Amino acid sequence: MSPLHVVILAAGQGSRMKSALPKVLHPVAGKPMLHHVVDTAKQLGAEQIHTVIGHGAERVRESLDDGSVTWVLQEEQLGTGHAVAQALPGLPEDARVLVLYGDVPLIASTTLEAMVRDLDEQTLALLTVDLDNPHGYGRIVRDADDNVREIVEQKDASAEQQAIHEVNTGILAVSARHLKSWLPTLSNRNAQGEYYLTDIIALAVEQGMGVTVSQPLTAFEVQGVNNRLQLAELERWYQRQQAERLMTEGASLADPARVDVRGELTIGNDLWIDVNVVFEGRVHLGSNVTIGPGCVIKDASIADGTDIKANSVIEGAVIGKNAQIGPFARLRPGTELAANTKVGNFVETKKAIVGEGSKINHLSYVGDASLGRNVNVGAGTITCNYDGVNKYRTVLGDGVFVGSNTSLVAPVTVAAEATIGAGSTITRDVADNELAVARGRQRNIAGWEKPKKA
Amino acid sequence: MSPLHVVILAAGQGSRMKSALPKVLHPVAGKPMLHHVVDTAKQLGAEQIHTVIGHGAERVRESLDDGSVTWVLQEEQLGTGHAVAQALPGLPEDARVLVLYGDVPLIASTTLEAMVRDLDEQTLALLTVDLDNPHGYGRIVRDADDNVREIVEQKDASAEQQAIHEVNTGILAVSARHLKSWLPTLSNRNAQGEYYLTDIIALAVEQGMGVTVSQPLTAFEVQGVNNRLQLAELERWYQRQQAERLMTEGASLADPARVDVRGELTIGNDLWIDVNVVFEGRVHLGSNVTIGPGCVIKDASIADGTDIKANSVIEGAVIGKNAQIGPFARLRPGTELAANTKVGNFVETKKAIVGEGSKINHLSYVGDASLGRNVNVGAGTITCNYDGVNKYRTVLGDGVFVGSNTSLVAPVTVAAEATIGAGSTITRDVADNELAVARGRQRNIAGWEKPKKA
Amino acid sequence: MSPLHVVILAAGQGSRMKSALPKVLHPVAGKPMLHHVVDTAKQLGAEQIHTVIGHGAERVRESLDDGSVTWVLQEEQLGTGHAVAQALPGLPEDARVLVLYGDVPLIASTTLEAMVRDLDEQTLALLTVDLDNPHGYGRIVRDADDNVREIVEQKDASAEQQAIHEVNTGILAVSARHLKSWLPTLSNRNAQGEYYLTDIIALAVEQGMGVTVSQPLTAFEVQGVNNRLQLAELERWYQRQQAERLMTEGASLADPARVDVRGELTIGNDLWIDVNVVFEGRVHLGSNVTIGPGCVIKDASIADGTDIKANSVIEGAVIGKNAQIGPFARLRPGTELAANTKVGNFVETKKAIVGEGSKINHLSYVGDASLGRNVNVGAGTITCNYDGVNKYRTVLGDGVFVGSNTSLVAPVTVAAEATIGAGSTITRDVADNELAVARGRQRNIAGWEKPKKA
Repeated sequence: MSPLHVVILAAGQGSRMKSALPKVLHPVAGKPMLHHVVDTAKQLGAEQIHTVIGHGAERVRESLDDGSVTWVLQEEQLGTGHAVAQALPGLPEDARVLVLYGDVPLIASTTLEAMVRDLDEQTLALLTVDLDNPHGYGRIVRDADDNVREIVEQKDASAEQQAIHEVNTGILAVSARHLKSWLPTLSNRNAQGEYYLTDIIALAVEQGMGVTVSQPLTAFEVQGVNNRLQLAELERWYQRQQAERLMTEGASLADPARVDVRGELTIGNDLWIDVNVVFEGRVHLGSNVTIGPGCVIKDASIADGTDIKANSVIEGAVIGKNAQIGPFARLRPGTELAANTKVGNFVETKKAIVGEGSKINHLSYVGDASLGRNVNVGAGTITCNYDGVNKYRTVLGDGVFVGSNTSLVAPVTVAAEATIGAGSTITRDVADNELAVARGRQRNIAGWEKPKKA
Repeated sequence: MSPLHVVILAAGQGSRMKSALPKVLHPVAGKPMLHHVVDTAKQLGAEQIHTVIGHGAERVRESLDDGSVTWVLQEEQLGTGHAVAQALPGLPEDARVLVLYGDVPLIASTTLEAMVRDLDEQTLALLTVDLDNPHGYGRIVRDADDNVREIVEQKDASAEQQAIHEVNTGILAVSARHLKSWLPTLSNRNAQGEYYLTDIIALAVEQGMGVTVSQPLTAFEVQGVNNRLQLAELERWYQRQQAERLMTEGASLADPARVDVRGELTIGNDLWIDVNVVFEGRVHLGSNVTIGPGCVIKDASIADGTDIKANSVIEGAVIGKNAQIGPFARLRPGTELAANTKVGNFVETKKAIVGEGSKINHLSYVGDASLGRNVNVGAGTITCNYDGVNKYRTVLGDGVFVGSNTSLVAPVTVAAEATIGAGSTITRDVADNELAVARGRQRNIAGWEKPKKA
Repeated sequence: MSPLHVVILAAGQGSRMKSALPKVLHPVAGKPMLHHVVDTAKQLGAEQIHTVIGHGAERVRESLDDGSVTWVLQEEQLGTGHAVAQALPGLPEDARVLVLYGDVPLIASTTLEAMVRDLDEQTLALLTVDLDNPHGYGRIVRDADDNVREIVEQKDASAEQQAIHEVNTGILAVSARHLKSWLPTLSNRNAQGEYYLTDIIALAVEQGMGVTVSQPLTAFEVQGVNNRLQLAELERWYQRQQAERLMTEGASLADPARVDVRGELTIGNDLWIDVNVVFEGRVHLGSNVTIGPGCVIKDASIADGTDIKANSVIEGAVIGKNAQIGPFARLRPGTELAANTKVGNFVETKKAIVGEGSKINHLSYVGDASLGRNVNVGAGTITCNYDGVNKYRTVLGDGVFVGSNTSLVAPVTVAAEATIGAGSTITRDVADNELAVARGRQRNIAGWEKPKKA
């Protein structure tokens, strides 16, 4: 089989996006549209991915600087035929070439595989789609034997042709040899003064080549994005697919229309995901995990049986089994919670290693800290980890009990089974089993006059 | 009128749910599907409810161990006819028998009442539904007089029959006497090798019995659940009904598609419920209550004129009139707030009795506490109610002023009109009108060198 | 051109709203329906707006007491013709009169402008709409020349007329002279015993006047509200329009169905607005602003490049460029944050002026305070601004470092570059570069017995 090369057109301006960001970098599900297309090309096993860039070329290049694609600069935007022509020098004669679009992000690799799998030198593979309202699109005109005869643009279509619902998607595959022969012959004598890639279909038919047609599973796969409304439509369709996947895999969703997956979410069985949960980055949820409403979870791993309560925000955290988190918990990167831990409301953790069974239940900040097993951190506890320039660690041994409203001035170590009295500011280490107290003596003053209205 | 017995089929595995939980225990609106059906059967005034269980029998039984239903074990799942046959021994000869399904959760009692109300010994009552796409369902074939003649399954249906949109729902009612005579005669000589309850329709027609047909108000009533997508569809329909009920009763909803009621919600007039509010358990909202966006409210009673602001989480609380709660308030079980109270942002309460006009406005934890009237709890106040093993109460008298960042080490009582200085840790009782202060003396140190980068 | 007078009918009871609030005061997008109509009338350049009130007249009047409209009391509700007749005394003979409805809130000014622009004395301008299901509405019957001949009510319509999809909206415009001649002649001999404004169409046709017909862009413009379900439908349509406007102007929305704009929202370019954000009042968002999920933003101005993270609640705040706010930040009125500031989780600010580069990252309350540049406020810091009767200010100079868990008892000033030790309660001013500490000495007690279960 000849090698597969993919050419992705990504040079357009996208002025209707009203954006300084090049159109192909606008994200669907948190990932630039172009990256979706590149990832799909990789899934096809493309030998090389040629990306034609123009508007915002520098920014597009920077977005994907891992060497996975070859960049081809199209200095002027003179049409799709011209754009593909820029890539010709990099295409080996014997390559199968698949043309994709950086602003058609959700084309499925399975659809494309069917197009290119058996593609030979004497065939052009065309992707078409049936639209309820085909107005404005190039119609696929077939002959009596149902073979593609030509593509007729809207303005040139007869009344009969306008009634055709099958339209051209622009996605096609053909041998590099033919592209190299055809593209230089294209003309720009048309209303737009552009060189149209579509014109090669007529050349293929003229030369007696076979034109095979395939179709995507849904029109969303070939929907292009020219403005933010279309972007939002694709986002919603993508998210609906994600929701259905999650339900099929074993998660119950309170509302499939109110979950967002932006990245890779892997799950176990028998999960419950409540309304308005947003997942970003790489997230794994074990079996029997429950996620309450309004949570945002990014780059996290949450083990079996753990319960994340409403309105929690979690990022860069690893959480063990049967933990209870939230509501209103805020776990920041570097948080590692062992099994059976509890982190409650209005608690922030950061670079915090917390041992099995430990609890930080209320209104606390635990940062740059290591907690042993069965530590109890009282309400209002703050690890004072920052002196304005340096950060220091707080270490709490197994079974430590920290009374409420305590300040732990790092670096400080409280050894196993020690107790800190409520309201203390702890600046020196505490040995195991000791009680440490650091607070003022209480004075009750009778006859005191309350403040008066000034 | 002969007694009504309801047989609920609840033995199926539901392998497409991808779940360790028996299918009929999967919840709609927070309540297992089977319990919805049982509750509907109770509304009908059923003399006895016979539930046929099989897969996960133990767990199903445990979910409903209040004696409200009789359990019938179906050892092998040999079809619906076989399932109902297991219940025969418990059915009195003269009973009207209604067959329901544990995975068809939202059948309305009004629909069923119409079916069984006038059911006599010479009639079989059948529930049918018209579907836009009837493919796959048993079609209701009627004779020239519009009487039901037979039910023809998809695979046996002629082209003409396939065009019929009226299909069998599986729900039917007939006398026990007939069931006892018919069920033992059913055959399993069919593609699935199962005994089909549906086959009794043919027997009824054969014997010249009348077949009365009724229909539900909507197809959702008779929609079965085989996977989590269907579960989500029913959930959404159920929630839409709840939203419409609330609006009809006098609540304005910011978005009827973004409210969830899982349990019993009763309301007064002129409420405002903003987007993404979730209600669970038994909740009562008085008139002129407003609920901000993103709130979760469970097992709570909220009196007239109270305002719950955005992103609050309330459970097991009783709130008086004209209170102001949140945003970001977290009321836990045992919270009782009198009229005109305020609980503000990042405040957690638990087993807290709060008198009229009292305020806990910012970043506090008030647990195991009793507050009198017009108490002012400053920001950052913590009731230290837990010594690691025991919990103790904090009592604040009428008019007490607690300065900010105070720790109240329970058990402790601060008597009426006393004042606590900011930053104090209070370990001893304070008499009325006293000022109590417990903090270190301030030292200002000149010439101090700031920390340097380590 | 003769002056334009608008008559708004707003006297109805709206009993199906189940509300103590007069129907026309129920809000769409946070603004009473009547006010929407009044604002539209103003946009048309109406010389005078006559509002006919009846049920709840006092409350309606109070809702709009800025003198922008003239009130006309309709003592009894005897029909639309009677209602408009009440306004006759205030209408100059030569006026063009446009009749609108207080419960038809979303009529577009562009639609109305087209109606009244060229209206002359010999013409009646009628607004009609084509409905898929016209049942119940007055059908527009036209003659062979397509001129309006009459309006036939549902009950009087022949089968042929019932098939007409064009219906009367009730909105019309005609000269005051004609109204003054026609309205006194209307009869109430009909089923309802009411005087119908619609009857004047027949009079116009009878007198050989021209009837010009125009239509709104969508039926939502002319949808009336009789219950809360219809109110919610209009709300959703309105919000969808807002979402589309934002996307067209340059904002990407995670989900156009999950954003609410209640007031005036102006934006720059290249914004990202995540799911479930609610905007109220006047809000401006600069370019490259990002708003996380679940935020509520009211009466605020947020400058370019600022990032508002999940679940934040902002009201009455001005935020500079490139600030980082939240998650779980709560900015209250009078908050002014300069550029490059940070306000983190579980932080409340109120009347707080914060200088460039300053940070309040965790669990703090900063109220009635002025912070200089590059101030660092440690976790758990509380400004004790209230003594029970008076409020006082806290002033922190440039570069001040406030250690965690500090109480700042106002009035107090900490001068530039001073440092406050963690856990301090600061009651006296601190000079520049000083270190202030106010806390108890730490005692570590060995041999201490932990509490035992009581």
